[in-house]
Amino acid sequence: MTDAIHRPTPGRRLRRGKVRGDTITLAHGSGGKAMRDLIDDVFVGAFDNPALAPLEDQARLALADLTRHGDRLAFTTDTYVVDPLFFPGGNIGELAVNGTVNDLAVGGARPLYLSCGVILEEGFPIADLRTIAGAMQRAAAAAGVSIVTGDTKVVPRGSADKLFINTSGVGMIAPGVEIAAERARPGDKVLVNGFIGDHGVAILAARDDLALEVPIESDSQPLNGLVTTLLEACPEVHCLRDATRGGLATVLNEFALAAGACVALDEATLPVREAVRGVSEILGLDPLYYANEGKLVAVVPAACADTALAAMRAHPAGRDAALIGEIRDGPAGRVILHTGFGGGRIVDMLVGEQLPRIC
Amino acid sequence: MTDAIHRPTPGRRLRRGKVRGDTITLAHGSGGKAMRDLIDDVFVGAFDNPALAPLEDQARLALADLTRHGDRLAFTTDTYVVDPLFFPGGNIGELAVNGTVNDLAVGGARPLYLSCGVILEEGFPIADLRTIAGAMQRAAAAAGVSIVTGDTKVVPRGSADKLFINTSGVGMIAPGVEIAAERARPGDKVLVNGFIGDHGVAILAARDDLALEVPIESDSQPLNGLVTTLLEACPEVHCLRDATRGGLATVLNEFALAAGACVALDEATLPVREAVRGVSEILGLDPLYYANEGKLVAVVPAACADTALAAMRAHPAGRDAALIGEIRDGPAGRVILHTGFGGGRIVDMLVGEQLPRIC
Repeated sequence: MTDAIHRPTPGRRLRRGKVRGDTITLAHGSGGKAMRDLIDDVFVGAFDNPALAPLEDQARLALADLTRHGDRLAFTTDTYVVDPLFFPGGNIGELAVNGTVNDLAVGGARPLYLSCGVILEEGFPIADLRTIAGAMQRAAAAAGVSIVTGDTKVVPRGSADKLFINTSGVGMIAPGVEIAAERARPGDKVLVNGFIGDHGVAILAARDDLALEVPIESDSQPLNGLVTTLLEACPEVHCLRDATRGGLATVLNEFALAAGACVALDEATLPVREAVRGVSEILGLDPLYYANEGKLVAVVPAACADTALAAMRAHPAGRDAALIGEIRDGPAGRVILHTGFGGGRIVDMLVGEQLPRIC
Repeated sequence: MTDAIHRPTPGRRLRRGKVRGDTITLAHGSGGKAMRDLIDDVFVGAFDNPALAPLEDQARLALADLTRHGDRLAFTTDTYVVDPLFFPGGNIGELAVNGTVNDLAVGGARPLYLSCGVILEEGFPIADLRTIAGAMQRAAAAAGVSIVTGDTKVVPRGSADKLFINTSGVGMIAPGVEIAAERARPGDKVLVNGFIGDHGVAILAARDDLALEVPIESDSQPLNGLVTTLLEACPEVHCLRDATRGGLATVLNEFALAAGACVALDEATLPVREAVRGVSEILGLDPLYYANEGKLVAVVPAACADTALAAMRAHPAGRDAALIGEIRDGPAGRVILHTGFGGGRIVDMLVGEQLPRIC
């Protein structure tokens, strides 16, 4: 059942439900009165938007509001299980909104509507849920999307770790926009919109109480505005992908595999903060594999590389953008990192797991 | 990050990844190679459909395939945490597909595309995951929908109970279809498409090894075909909702509240199996509050009640449909069950929780 977030009734609209108690109980997932009060109070209260009323088991969206943005519907989903829920630079709520907004944006889509499916562990503090719902609403507003439908489940203590969030999203792709990993061509340039590894190190620090001299914050941010700017400056963008789980290395390997080409990286140009580099050396981790939550990799024709880079740098989400490499004929399907001393090493796809529950 | 289910690359299309080992490890959620192999092998293998290739971080759907089905987009989400995962009559996989298909259908929408977001506990048997993915695909095929995008997360042992699934769905609503809880009018008739309480009792039995003389199976089934048939017979359907968590009682209370009217039920006409009635009496539970996974309640104008009932009974998903009551002026916002002896009792919305993790 999709729940009461879809069901503001005349009665409920006038006299909105109020959640009782300080923590989540199994009754809050019952489908009954306690659940409706929780949803009215916490979620509808936070997400309130025109598309929410007068909804039922599903949001109903006028086709005209979609068609004016493009000729293809983009549809994506992502579940967030990050641990801890609150970390330097954000919490799971904005991560869940930005992550799904970005999965739409890197397809060249304009993100429009999001859903929100929450799994709560019995005993979860309602104050924390309010904070998370508030962060989701602020992130949605910042990205220009509406959270129009949702679902809430509660599981007994010990059956889930605190809270998990799924967000799915729909958006529209403008005519002519054709972004695909296999479009990378020899000679194309590879751009990234800023420092890599911040999110991974922020979570690591929050989890292990790592005492960093320079505190590192998650880079969680929406990328749809940056993608729009980039496509205006260089409509011929070949590939776009956000470098989340698996990091920059995994995305570049996907490009190399899809295009049957080689990605040549110049180590000297990789934007990595000193603090991130330092932690990585101490822990023996590679920033190329850290999850990012506000970084995209773009492959563009050489002809518009400078324009694209300048456009990215002119946007707040791309201030520290850099040209980090290029596409070459071969070795096909390989990513090679060229080091300072004329050497080079193969950067493989992530094997095994670097940091569980990073997003 | 939305994962490799969206990323069949030329290489991977030819030489599809093969999952290693018998159980889920943290590496299967890493975003790296192990995850890609799991997804290629288990999910892409099961869900394979034209819309899947050549996807990236998002499914891309031609607008023409949507617009020919209606003038409004329906968008819904639901998370499934049912315990146990396998129960008489089905498993969490088909539940996750049918439930979201039904949330679209009761809005009068034709369900088209689904997403699949899975949370796996480290150590989960891959054979069970294959069974569940297979059940999802069979349910999707039966309902005429495609699973076009997905995400997989793995959490360490103890951070989640085995497996949770979120499915979101999009569909199209045909012009003129206007189904809404507040449209219930005095004189309207209330119909249900068959026996209530089967799913609740099936889960109860599976959980507590209840030895039932007559085994009860979950009623999990797609309702979109039945809704189409119903709308053809009676385009003037006022309200439709599937009676899942909170049961029939909760849905009828929602109708009563939304319309500011009274729902009068005739106890003698409620379709409840003897075995369900028996278990309920022993356990002191009320079938009106059991979750159903293949039951809808329809409120239709009196003029087309007989036609609507006949049409439902002529459909496999409505064989045991019944007329169970009517809408009256008052008392507003109330559901009243008229018992055999001329008496009546108020049927309130579910308060508290009857059965946690029922869906």
